Amino acid sequence: MIAVPQPSIVLVRPQLAQNIGKAARAMLNFGLTDLRLVSPRDGWPNPEAGPAASGADVVLEKARLFESVADAVADCAHVYATTVRKRGVTKPVLPPDEAVAAIHAEPGGSAILFGPERSGLETDDVAVARTILTVPINPEFGSLNLAQAVILVAYEWSKGQNLSQPPATELDPPAPQQELDGMIAQLETMLDGSGYFFPADRMPTVKRTLRTLLTKPGWTSQEVRTLRGVLSTLDRPRGPQRAATSRNASKRSSS
Amino acid sequence: MIAVPQPSIVLVRPQLAQNIGKAARAMLNFGLTDLRLVSPRDGWPNPEAGPAASGADVVLEKARLFESVADAVADCAHVYATTVRKRGVTKPVLPPDEAVAAIHAEPGGSAILFGPERSGLETDDVAVARTILTVPINPEFGSLNLAQAVILVAYEWSKGQNLSQPPATELDPPAPQQELDGMIAQLETMLDGSGYFFPADRMPTVKRTLRTLLTKPGWTSQEVRTLRGVLSTLDRPRGPQRAATSRNASKRSSS
Repeated sequence: MIAVPQPSIVLVRPQLAQNIGKAARAMLNFGLTDLRLVSPRDGWPNPEAGPAASGADVVLEKARLFESVADAVADCAHVYATTVRKRGVTKPVLPPDEAVAAIHAEPGGSAILFGPERSGLETDDVAVARTILTVPINPEFGSLNLAQAVILVAYEWSKGQNLSQPPATELDPPAPQQELDGMIAQLETMLDGSGYFFPADRMPTVKRTLRTLLTKPGWTSQEVRTLRGVLSTLDRPRGPQRAATSRNASKRSSS
Repeated sequence: MIAVPQPSIVLVRPQLAQNIGKAARAMLNFGLTDLRLVSPRDGWPNPEAGPAASGADVVLEKARLFESVADAVADCAHVYATTVRKRGVTKPVLPPDEAVAAIHAEPGGSAILFGPERSGLETDDVAVARTILTVPINPEFGSLNLAQAVILVAYEWSKGQNLSQPPATELDPPAPQQELDGMIAQLETMLDGSGYFFPADRMPTVKRTLRTLLTKPGWTSQEVRTLRGVLSTLDRPRGPQRAATSRNASKRSSS
């Protein structure tokens, strides 16, 4: 068996500590140990998680706490958002088996987001992901709880562990999420200064659209650096050409 | 979809009515409705099952009560016994996916036995089965509860059913090459004016790199239009914000 990096399980704003414990138990049954918590409602650590974990304490002890989804997945190259509904976002939707096949096939770390018990992931959480993971379910009775969603994904992942994987592709892995976030932030600052986000109330939607576009390709770190060079040059033209750009811009404006 | 007879889920001497409810909920999520109970410890019907079923009442109402495993599976052609351990019986042992593949492939009704919460199936129960169903699990932490074992089997079974596949994503096709070329040409013009292509003899290589980046995502026509809007705005900032941009640029230049 070739070691495949484990996907991180990211619980976004979980409500009950008990369910964090149950998710930890579900994970460890299938060998997953990297649990990340984004703003758990009742704080962390929480004494109610332990008993529900039924002995999966090692997962709870290693669990890391984050303030935002972006922070939680900053080092991950692939982010999957688990949802039950399609949300009008133009991203690929995969069932658990195909999602874990993709995780096994692609180089770089992966994170799988699970939303709060009642409401599920918000649109902004889903926007961080490149791919939607949906468990196909009885259309007349969909009632998967958090730990069940986690266990199905963990179970599927464990199946791939027994398969001998072909040697990893020599493509560079996609850049970690934080590098992408840096590039997106740079572009947003430039666009904000250029009056792109108008009217202002559409800004969140427009930003999500841009994020979806820019997270789609899975650019490598080198590619992200190149694009940031492009943006920096557009933001601050170099040397003598600068005057020429302004002239061009005026010419076009007057046409 | 081809109608495949559903496997019956047989809970053998379950202890807590709550777990019967949870098993019913797990089943209905994946379209299974034939629940059979062999001598539940606390009797049947039991008012504690309902709340735990979270709405899967139809499964509980249809559940049938039997006095022995033999009675419960009398009408089934194939009996699978779910165990975590091999028990020295010489029967084939299948993981859930292979077991449900066999259920789909073979004519005749199937039953899957699940043992009591603490102890699991007795040797005599297993003796009724032709095949052992075992969920491959972390050898250092095996802690699947009854409803979880049921949900994994139900989930695997549902995969063979076309009904429960996620709706095919209706992603727009990638934009035709000429639209992409138009966008790349626009960016190149802007970069040329900003002094990006320096030294000039590297221009062909740099342009190829950019083209590789920008053709990687397979953006749709709509996405290409959005990006061209971004480029146009950066090239010709709108209205009052323009002065602000220039100020920012000077500030950064002087740092």
